Amino acid sequence: MLSWCMKKIMLDESEMPKEWYNVLPDLPEPLPPPLHPATQEPVKPEDLEPIFPKGLIQQEMSGERWIRIPEDVREIYRIWRPTPLVRAERLEKALKTPARIYFKYEGASPPGSHKPNTAVAQAYYNAKEGVERLTTETGAGQWGSALCFATKLFEMACTVYMVKVSFMQKPYRRVMMETWGGEVIPSPSDRTEVGRKILAENPDTPGSLGIAISEAIEDAAKNENTKYSLGSVLNHVLLHQTVIGLETKAQLEKVDEKPDVLIGCVGGGSNFAGLTYPFVNDAKNGDLEIIAVEPAACPTLTAGEYKYDFGDVAGLTPLLKMYTLGHDFIPPPIHAGGLRYHGDAPTLCMLVKHGVIKARAVKQLPTFEAGLLFARTEGIIPAPETNHAVRAAIDEAIKARENNEEKVIVFGFSGHGLLDLQAYDDYLAGRLADT
Amino acid sequence: MLSWCMKKIMLDESEMPKEWYNVLPDLPEPLPPPLHPATQEPVKPEDLEPIFPKGLIQQEMSGERWIRIPEDVREIYRIWRPTPLVRAERLEKALKTPARIYFKYEGASPPGSHKPNTAVAQAYYNAKEGVERLTTETGAGQWGSALCFATKLFEMACTVYMVKVSFMQKPYRRVMMETWGGEVIPSPSDRTEVGRKILAENPDTPGSLGIAISEAIEDAAKNENTKYSLGSVLNHVLLHQTVIGLETKAQLEKVDEKPDVLIGCVGGGSNFAGLTYPFVNDAKNGDLEIIAVEPAACPTLTAGEYKYDFGDVAGLTPLLKMYTLGHDFIPPPIHAGGLRYHGDAPTLCMLVKHGVIKARAVKQLPTFEAGLLFARTEGIIPAPETNHAVRAAIDEAIKARENNEEKVIVFGFSGHGLLDLQAYDDYLAGRLADT
Repeated sequence: MLSWCMKKIMLDESEMPKEWYNVLPDLPEPLPPPLHPATQEPVKPEDLEPIFPKGLIQQEMSGERWIRIPEDVREIYRIWRPTPLVRAERLEKALKTPARIYFKYEGASPPGSHKPNTAVAQAYYNAKEGVERLTTETGAGQWGSALCFATKLFEMACTVYMVKVSFMQKPYRRVMMETWGGEVIPSPSDRTEVGRKILAENPDTPGSLGIAISEAIEDAAKNENTKYSLGSVLNHVLLHQTVIGLETKAQLEKVDEKPDVLIGCVGGGSNFAGLTYPFVNDAKNGDLEIIAVEPAACPTLTAGEYKYDFGDVAGLTPLLKMYTLGHDFIPPPIHAGGLRYHGDAPTLCMLVKHGVIKARAVKQLPTFEAGLLFARTEGIIPAPETNHAVRAAIDEAIKARENNEEKVIVFGFSGHGLLDLQAYDDYLAGRLADT
Repeated sequence: MLSWCMKKIMLDESEMPKEWYNVLPDLPEPLPPPLHPATQEPVKPEDLEPIFPKGLIQQEMSGERWIRIPEDVREIYRIWRPTPLVRAERLEKALKTPARIYFKYEGASPPGSHKPNTAVAQAYYNAKEGVERLTTETGAGQWGSALCFATKLFEMACTVYMVKVSFMQKPYRRVMMETWGGEVIPSPSDRTEVGRKILAENPDTPGSLGIAISEAIEDAAKNENTKYSLGSVLNHVLLHQTVIGLETKAQLEKVDEKPDVLIGCVGGGSNFAGLTYPFVNDAKNGDLEIIAVEPAACPTLTAGEYKYDFGDVAGLTPLLKMYTLGHDFIPPPIHAGGLRYHGDAPTLCMLVKHGVIKARAVKQLPTFEAGLLFARTEGIIPAPETNHAVRAAIDEAIKARENNEEKVIVFGFSGHGLLDLQAYDDYLAGRLADT
């Protein structure tokens, strides 16, 4: 037991995973296929080729448990990976808990979150097939900045349709994208048919993620050597994120720890799946508990219905079998913008449905209370999304104190809050709603 | 030679330095003592006791080459230390240089810069002597946020007098300080006599670092269990920063590299000294070159006069023998706020005077050009201050290409630019002056 004296459990670059873990063969039942929005028939690989490269379509449908990480991707991962697994001893002391709390720190990446784990992989497979430009949508900007970072390193162009209200209110994520050479367009825009149509009807619209998705897809479908990129929900996106959990597993083994509880926040499910999927078979065996934490303002897993639904507002994407609040659901404007999604990844939804993963919804104020305690004990300021995981980890640690249990709690620190300080200002000034 | 395949050269926590390196016994001549502002006599230790704890005064005047780092300080260093030494291979390729470029990444700390290396040590020595609150001044907020971070971890209060114009224009550093529990006061304020006097004369003053220093010192001197803390210039501050260079030395040895050129940016000199002082004896032997980079807008080392001068505008601090542009010099408002200081650390000035360290001044636009190239190749966005070091490293790498020399260039990456994105926006939009 080294853990008493080690704050950060590190891996060498040589210990970084060489394969991603694909959860599909370990699901309790076959995953219902995505359906074509027009025909309602299962989507065929060639249906996706106008917007995705073949390498990623293959991964999206692969039944292989292990998929090799290309050396060019690992080379860029090494800019910030392996990330530390950190023992939160000061937080433990503040909570007077017998539990040992660890967090996997994905804030170490240059864009500040887990998002580049898939952005880099997606840029690689596109570049390999000769794609010269990627398009995507972004809300608050976490995903867009990760993709601009990744495309620049593969010498590709990147066009980001950014929800207009965020474009105006959050200039710094835009600047970050431009610093990495990305082109950022407030959406709706006059670049696309769908954008022009919406602007004609409503010139003052603040935009929405649904509109931005439609613009990015149209741009990719209509232009040569251009593809579209998505930051969550799909199988291949979650696959790329499993480096998080595979590293965590190796790090826990280094200090002879077996986790009792694994915790992550859920927006579309990619950071959550990245941490927890490599432990899914342990959870099926009853060896540990996995908890998905979502905002009470957008309670997809805890209050949604399990059915086929569209991924976007306009109904242009394939239909996915998932828990959904309805594709026209518009969550209240909480600060954890990355968790405001009406659906969730189909694999995650199935694991929740079968009870392998438990879901929990938390309100906004307790998440910031948790984040502030974390910042003031561990020194690192979490993103508002991450605060959801911090909240649940603290609640589990308090429960362990009450039951006098020496539990091992591991949570996913999905990103830092250095570009979300307005949210902390609002919280400290008492301006936050407890939605 | 492992370096060809390793991106980040890491140290184990157990390899983190156990002692700081004190350059005083290795200076080419004895350091001229600080003089009392009133009597012009050498300052005695007891003169400093109203504002500094005894432990730090002792370090300020110590002639010991090695000073033990307390275990409680190392415990907190472990939150982000040892920091990586990174091979900038993608930058090398972009420059087509035969040089090998390494950077020591201090942006890994929670406040995002090298500043907590001394903030944590200063908080520790104050806490040990029963001090309950620290006061300090801050301009853009880097130093203030590091001290709020550090004091919170030792359960002390922190009062930061923040130059009023920065308080208004840069709310996010303020929020960061408040998130860590600090109290941030726009300066001049009605909390101090000097503040009230200035406000009475000029209620609309934007404030200045000189005024904020005076307020912070007055607050510390007049209140019980309260001391003052400074973020650069003084011997003990530079001493604490030498963990940077000591780690760098160990990391270079791990990959069998001998540096030919060491580069750092200079404001007051603490980050620069931290990286380079452990190599000063090698430079005296002619084994390597050390280059201090300052802004052309504030050319202390390259155009200042070597003489006794005050550290603040009002003339309240002891007189220090240093290169100075005059204590009433007000540099133009470049984005590298941390480099806008009329003087420099006395030890650094003496080493420059004796030719052990070379100084170079660079204009603003070329520093941002360098920072942008770095961000687009290495993926990490540097602070405007750090861009000065990046510029000089690139210039040395280009020179190595022209001379076809396989040089080893190491520079100090003092902090990331995630809270300086406005500066990049101004640069990309062509709004930056080439001062």
